[in-house]
Amino acid sequence: MRHLLASAKRRKIYPVNPTASEVLGIAAYDSVVDVPGSVDLAVIAVPALQVPEVMRECVQKGVKAAVVISGGFAEMGEQGGKLETELVKVARQGGIRFIGPNSMGHADTSSQLSTLAWTEEITPGPVALLSQSGNYGHRIIHSGVSSGIGFSKFVSTGNEVDLHLEDYLEYLAQDESTKIITAYIEGLREGRRFFQLAKETTVRKPIIVIKAGGTKESAKAVRSHTGTLAGSDAVYAAAFRQAGVLRVDDDDELCDVVTALLYQPLPRNNRIGILTIGGGLGVVAAEACEREGLEIAPLASSTLERLDAYLPPRWSHRNPVDMAGIGMDKSSATFSSLWALMEDKNIDAILLQAPVALGTKRLSNMFSAEETRAFREVEERNLSMVRQRIKEYGKPVFMVRPALEFATDPEASSAFRREGIPVYPNPRRAARVLHHLAWYRDYLDAAGR
Amino acid sequence: MRHLLASAKRRKIYPVNPTASEVLGIAAYDSVVDVPGSVDLAVIAVPALQVPEVMRECVQKGVKAAVVISGGFAEMGEQGGKLETELVKVARQGGIRFIGPNSMGHADTSSQLSTLAWTEEITPGPVALLSQSGNYGHRIIHSGVSSGIGFSKFVSTGNEVDLHLEDYLEYLAQDESTKIITAYIEGLREGRRFFQLAKETTVRKPIIVIKAGGTKESAKAVRSHTGTLAGSDAVYAAAFRQAGVLRVDDDDELCDVVTALLYQPLPRNNRIGILTIGGGLGVVAAEACEREGLEIAPLASSTLERLDAYLPPRWSHRNPVDMAGIGMDKSSATFSSLWALMEDKNIDAILLQAPVALGTKRLSNMFSAEETRAFREVEERNLSMVRQRIKEYGKPVFMVRPALEFATDPEASSAFRREGIPVYPNPRRAARVLHHLAWYRDYLDAAGR
Repeated sequence: MRHLLASAKRRKIYPVNPTASEVLGIAAYDSVVDVPGSVDLAVIAVPALQVPEVMRECVQKGVKAAVVISGGFAEMGEQGGKLETELVKVARQGGIRFIGPNSMGHADTSSQLSTLAWTEEITPGPVALLSQSGNYGHRIIHSGVSSGIGFSKFVSTGNEVDLHLEDYLEYLAQDESTKIITAYIEGLREGRRFFQLAKETTVRKPIIVIKAGGTKESAKAVRSHTGTLAGSDAVYAAAFRQAGVLRVDDDDELCDVVTALLYQPLPRNNRIGILTIGGGLGVVAAEACEREGLEIAPLASSTLERLDAYLPPRWSHRNPVDMAGIGMDKSSATFSSLWALMEDKNIDAILLQAPVALGTKRLSNMFSAEETRAFREVEERNLSMVRQRIKEYGKPVFMVRPALEFATDPEASSAFRREGIPVYPNPRRAARVLHHLAWYRDYLDAAGR
Repeated sequence: MRHLLASAKRRKIYPVNPTASEVLGIAAYDSVVDVPGSVDLAVIAVPALQVPEVMRECVQKGVKAAVVISGGFAEMGEQGGKLETELVKVARQGGIRFIGPNSMGHADTSSQLSTLAWTEEITPGPVALLSQSGNYGHRIIHSGVSSGIGFSKFVSTGNEVDLHLEDYLEYLAQDESTKIITAYIEGLREGRRFFQLAKETTVRKPIIVIKAGGTKESAKAVRSHTGTLAGSDAVYAAAFRQAGVLRVDDDDELCDVVTALLYQPLPRNNRIGILTIGGGLGVVAAEACEREGLEIAPLASSTLERLDAYLPPRWSHRNPVDMAGIGMDKSSATFSSLWALMEDKNIDAILLQAPVALGTKRLSNMFSAEETRAFREVEERNLSMVRQRIKEYGKPVFMVRPALEFATDPEASSAFRREGIPVYPNPRRAARVLHHLAWYRDYLDAAGR
């Protein structure tokens, strides 16, 4: 109700409650039937047993759409199942389409409509989320917003007795405000339709899913959660691959992939250039990439020559490029090396792990105030050139930086984000994203896109 | 030098530099030979070509120990290799043992000796770290300190031409200030000795290692980094298992395992109880546990009865325990449910994912100031009982909470840490740690400990 009121300038909100005369200071009605004028959307959050009756009143009122927040239906066993059957019968006969039951609500950031009970704001943006778990959906939004991801629509689909995940997917595929579709799935009611829709959609818009319930006890937990069958994990995996759907493990990986897709081109192939400040960092990054099926490309001889000019003689002379303890005051050499790697024909994407874009506090340990200003100016220019060159060469650049550095030096984080360069806390996560991107590029190539 | 000076009250520091008359305001000497009195430790950071000569002067002075920071030896090719051979010959003949070359230095927090060039402080504590990469060692220390881990000793072992990783390991096994040994390894010079030492040590002290260079190009990177052979990954993996060594993938996983070992008992077996606020969270947690080979234990009938009394009728009635949208103001029901799971004979460890120990700001959205105080008081009592019961029942309890929640609600994080309850950002990381702990318990059982 509080969330709905936040958009009250754009619409009229009528509380319905048979025992209260007002709710949050607004006059309440005994029944939806008593509300003056027509009603566009009913949000139903009464005990399960009363939901069919409330739905009947909505029919009487001529309501066409509803969100049923109430739980206590099929997920509670046989009796709840009967109640659910009654509910859907009432709605169908009355021509009402509805979300839920057992939904946490939904949100549309462009029209500022939210039937969610959370207090957090959802940043508007081009990513849609469909979730068969309200709490897990909340978690994804939470992680997304903190990673700088904005959302167009969110639906907590609940028990899906009327509208199915496939219905929302069909809508989002056409929705102009949605550029990327994400989903948390426990089990599909219309698998064949989902994969047909997905196949048509992924050639234009990426679809990224978490499919849960792939193990024995988690599948049982799915059943008791939303009354769904989790199905064979291998069958889902194969179908996702065939339909060009990117499958990820959890909310972190989902946000990692979305961030890259939002701001970076797809790599032409899977050959990675690694640029680091230290040998061990390069070893670990190379291993992470190879474990994800990526290639550590040999450097072209022209690249070797250029790097010889920029870097101290102790540099590794191979990919991964260990810049061998280059000073934090030498970020220009780091950028020159980056340009060299970007221009190397053997390299499709670059993983950067070096101290550039440091915050003012760390710079002030090395430089005077005036030197800091001059240094910062050059670095800002270099940073915006990264974005320009990513576009020019069509090669993604990812930054790896430990989470703690971001906590202690937030300026650096925001500098990269401003330039659309995704930042990952370790090379494993960056390599995983590059794997997804290279796979998706392959899929699109095979699909003739 | 700055780091050394920080401990200058406990020792005398003499800069040696042939071209400067003073360094950081302290009179400098032309050669170590000119330093008055005897010298306990020489820290050598001159260009590679000059290192053998400086080492000769150390021999002349009667120095017995050195740290060689200088790089440019075997890792640089044949010429550097010859220089290295000369260096080790000079030191051996003169009876000097040394760390490095190509080391980033070392630190001993109890005697406050640090030859590192970092500016960060290392929190003192019971964890030792040996690292064959200075930068990656830095990263582990960085991640560790931010996870609340304290360190006893750190050695960046460098090229290990004199002292080997095995020498440090032998020392740490006996070192009373070290309770847990961790290492970043690229390749072992004395594999047989390492595994013999490890086998003797792990029955008393856990050893946790990252072994890098397990893939083709990363192995080549290892070679150019410290001139080491990475060796067969499968052979290493088998040897680690036989010696009771816990092998982890990266610094995050290393810190996750260390945190659990520091504060939690080893689970008796691998049967996990999951307590969550939502169905989807339970599904994902159960899947994460099963993928790590853990079991989702069926609840004892007495536990089912107890949970029926604490939780709303919609709770899942099975493990994972979905508390079905229990309010944030009902943390006492969460704790009662936790006690029930801890007392269940089918359960060896518990994974908790519920909104307890919320910060004052979030509580004040729900309660008056007075209510908040009362609520907090009860919760503090419950939190300290968790620690007590973990000890009593010998069952570890892990908390799962998204990283963002910690950023926005740091009070909660510190409340858990104060009680020694490890907090992981997602169930996958918690499950991975439980897998390691259950495996280690099995190993110790088989070893008769």
